[in-house]
Amino acid sequence: MKVRILVSLKPGVLDPQGRAVHHALEGLGFAGVDDVRIGRTVTLEVADDTSDAALEEMCEKLLANTVIENYRIEKLEG
Amino acid sequence: MKVRILVSLKPGVLDPQGRAVHHALEGLGFAGVDDVRIGRTVTLEVADDTSDAALEEMCEKLLANTVIENYRIEKLEG
Repeated sequence: MKVRILVSLKPGVLDPQGRAVHHALEGLGFAGVDDVRIGRTVTLEVADDTSDAALEEMCEKLLANTVIENYRIEKLEG
Repeated sequence: MKVRILVSLKPGVLDPQGRAVHHALEGLGFAGVDDVRIGRTVTLEVADDTSDAALEEMCEKLLANTVIENYRIEKLEG
């Protein structure tokens, strides 16, 4: 089973990477960019019987820093 | 308009980060994890009239290293 975990900074947490990309886009002449936020995806290939609880535990223990990050678990087809 | 760009390593490209996370998950006792791939998300807040071509150009020029990475553009509601 393929699972994608989207990890993103919590709203209000400063995103220096996003700011740097934002400046770079403006430097390249792209107008109309109001905000840029950088996040992480962790795509897992796991056994079909892996429980939601186990996936949550992976996120809580390792894949996301829950102090400053949110995570969302998406199960993908195929 | 909110746009999310998913950047991932092309199949076959070595993913040392993914491998490290894989080992760490196993070390924490999570069984049944066959593969781990790490990617990046870039969430943009852009003007509603931003064209698909402009978004592609942002990816090609800055947001993805198209030699080793694939990217996918997703338009999000709200």
